[in-house]
Amino acid sequence: MSSTDLLLTFNAGSSTVKIGIFSIEGAEARHLGKGVIDLRAEPLSLGLTKGSQRVDMPLKAKLTDDLHGVIDETFTLLADHFDMTAAAAAGHRVVHGGERFTSAVALDDDAIEGIEALIPLAPLHQPQALRFIHALRHLKPHLLQMASFDTAFHSTQDDLVRRLAIPRSLHDEGIKRYGFHGLSYKFIAGELARRAPHAAKAVVAHLGSGASLCALENGISRDCSMGFSTLDGIPMATRPGWLDPGVILHLAGERKRSLREIEDLLYHRSGLLGVSGISADTRYLLKDGRPEARQAIDLFTLRIAGEIGRMAVTLGGLDAVVFTAGIGEHQPDVRAGVAERLSWLGLSIDEKANAANGFMISTRESPMAAHVIATDEEQVIADEALSVLRAR
Amino acid sequence: MSSTDLLLTFNAGSSTVKIGIFSIEGAEARHLGKGVIDLRAEPLSLGLTKGSQRVDMPLKAKLTDDLHGVIDETFTLLADHFDMTAAAAAGHRVVHGGERFTSAVALDDDAIEGIEALIPLAPLHQPQALRFIHALRHLKPHLLQMASFDTAFHSTQDDLVRRLAIPRSLHDEGIKRYGFHGLSYKFIAGELARRAPHAAKAVVAHLGSGASLCALENGISRDCSMGFSTLDGIPMATRPGWLDPGVILHLAGERKRSLREIEDLLYHRSGLLGVSGISADTRYLLKDGRPEARQAIDLFTLRIAGEIGRMAVTLGGLDAVVFTAGIGEHQPDVRAGVAERLSWLGLSIDEKANAANGFMISTRESPMAAHVIATDEEQVIADEALSVLRAR
Repeated sequence: MSSTDLLLTFNAGSSTVKIGIFSIEGAEARHLGKGVIDLRAEPLSLGLTKGSQRVDMPLKAKLTDDLHGVIDETFTLLADHFDMTAAAAAGHRVVHGGERFTSAVALDDDAIEGIEALIPLAPLHQPQALRFIHALRHLKPHLLQMASFDTAFHSTQDDLVRRLAIPRSLHDEGIKRYGFHGLSYKFIAGELARRAPHAAKAVVAHLGSGASLCALENGISRDCSMGFSTLDGIPMATRPGWLDPGVILHLAGERKRSLREIEDLLYHRSGLLGVSGISADTRYLLKDGRPEARQAIDLFTLRIAGEIGRMAVTLGGLDAVVFTAGIGEHQPDVRAGVAERLSWLGLSIDEKANAANGFMISTRESPMAAHVIATDEEQVIADEALSVLRAR
Repeated sequence: MSSTDLLLTFNAGSSTVKIGIFSIEGAEARHLGKGVIDLRAEPLSLGLTKGSQRVDMPLKAKLTDDLHGVIDETFTLLADHFDMTAAAAAGHRVVHGGERFTSAVALDDDAIEGIEALIPLAPLHQPQALRFIHALRHLKPHLLQMASFDTAFHSTQDDLVRRLAIPRSLHDEGIKRYGFHGLSYKFIAGELARRAPHAAKAVVAHLGSGASLCALENGISRDCSMGFSTLDGIPMATRPGWLDPGVILHLAGERKRSLREIEDLLYHRSGLLGVSGISADTRYLLKDGRPEARQAIDLFTLRIAGEIGRMAVTLGGLDAVVFTAGIGEHQPDVRAGVAERLSWLGLSIDEKANAANGFMISTRESPMAAHVIATDEEQVIADEALSVLRAR
């Protein structure tokens, strides 16, 4: 057990929460372990990873709206492995920072109100982190809490790139392209600067069950495929990405679908699942022999490659493509499918390195580079929380 | 006056109808003149162009739903300039051909029913042509009528390109990317084959008040920025083009806007008009000194260039960019704005040729070519109608 202060990170998604445990060592947040709770499972359990150790601990607590029982028991279980009395601070991943939050902040009443005020911009995602923030405030009132924002990394984007071609009054009221997955892109930008410092113009493909692309110029975000909402950009596990706005008018007007039905269709029944009719998971689709499964994968790679083409225009060139997150880090077939469509731009993939999920998966001769980098959002939340802590 | 048979073309938009007068000379439809009626004007008038002659003739008839009075008087006025008794056939531009109409057809009862069945896919546009078809059937029952379809030229596209990442049952029911402005693209493809036969991979930018891009491979459509509806793709005079689907959910859900309000917003108050808050017309915006006007033009060119980047991926390369239609043919500033963003791909513009709206506006050294070609949808309608006529 560490005798130094601990810093916890909370990355609350719609179905899981990932809890990072870090030790504060000077200006560094060092990763000690990680817990994951699948909030849809019954009974609940805490999957804990600490070094090479991996344990699964059942929770007695039931899931309640206020999360009190679950968090309380989680702290108790974690105390068997870490000195939880040394927990000094917690950093949360918050999806939407709007225009206000362009960097991490300490969570006082005012900041929490500011985060709550952004719920209308992300009604399905924003409340997740807030539940954990409120629960920790109640259960651990002395724990300092900070928030890191998925949108903040993209605040460097040009106003023009963030603008939709709608009445400017709506833009001024906040209907604009914010960009998401910023914690992941921040981590990748740091890794890229260290490991491929000559890749001035890069597009990063964060391909998880949620997926987006980010155009980086010397590590600075210049464009993102997502969007005002988490629906836009490239197809995802169950979301469509780019969709003709006329489709929604058609579904609501000609087909009399309700707003709730359309929302459910776009958030939960589109994307890879919708196109294949088989699965939302690229691992299954790649193994499945049916043409519908192949079609879903092909549409996925076509649209990723097309969006990289669009972003190359935003950047005025392209030196490298980076793949990250679950699919990006582990699925050579998806990377190869994207890369093949970019061969006219000079990208040539080293099949062996690609199959091995290597850092450098383009050939030595390829004028454009392709990389695989494992992302670490928890490390960014911890680093940002520590910065806020140290600046106090 | 010609003693040969005449062929008329009807290009009915939401606010104007353009009537082409052609003589049938063997297998050729030769353009004799053109009439335009602004259906929003009061009183109505017929603007007639015949060779270098240009006359404006007031109409006494009022606009009625059945158009009988207006069409009857128009035929009478045209008879002063053309031998209207020789009118043998009329070709109509119909916006939506769905999956059924992949080439021009003679308009029998069955075909008209087929066109009417597609109204749900283009509720604002499809009825326009049908009004003229029904009126001519009533007034000139012996006139043979044909229809040309804006979507037909795009039926060569790969299923994957036409697919949206939505449930495949919806795709099978017709919610897919059809593509529009096909008559214009067909004309440009013909001109391009004749005048720049080496441009195997080209993107054509049809920039009018409605605007889209088409990716051509050896004259065959491989991609189009529009879409399931005429809202998708690049920003237009008053339409937004590509829009995060979450924006519509937000307007309907959080802001309680009705479907009619959203439809009005997207069809009539977005695009260049919405972004500038000044005008829907690039001519005014380019002259206006205000930053909002400049911003609308800059967003227009950014999004056109970005979509060209996406389409270059569909094509696997890009040899030429072609500008056509009102803005494309006459506005060097817009072309220069687009071209500048493609300079990294090797496009270099000849400023003098661009200012003169010349055919070849790229420099002699430019690895990628840029062209200006005047489009002629009426000629394509006439050619297609004549083909159908001769095949009977």
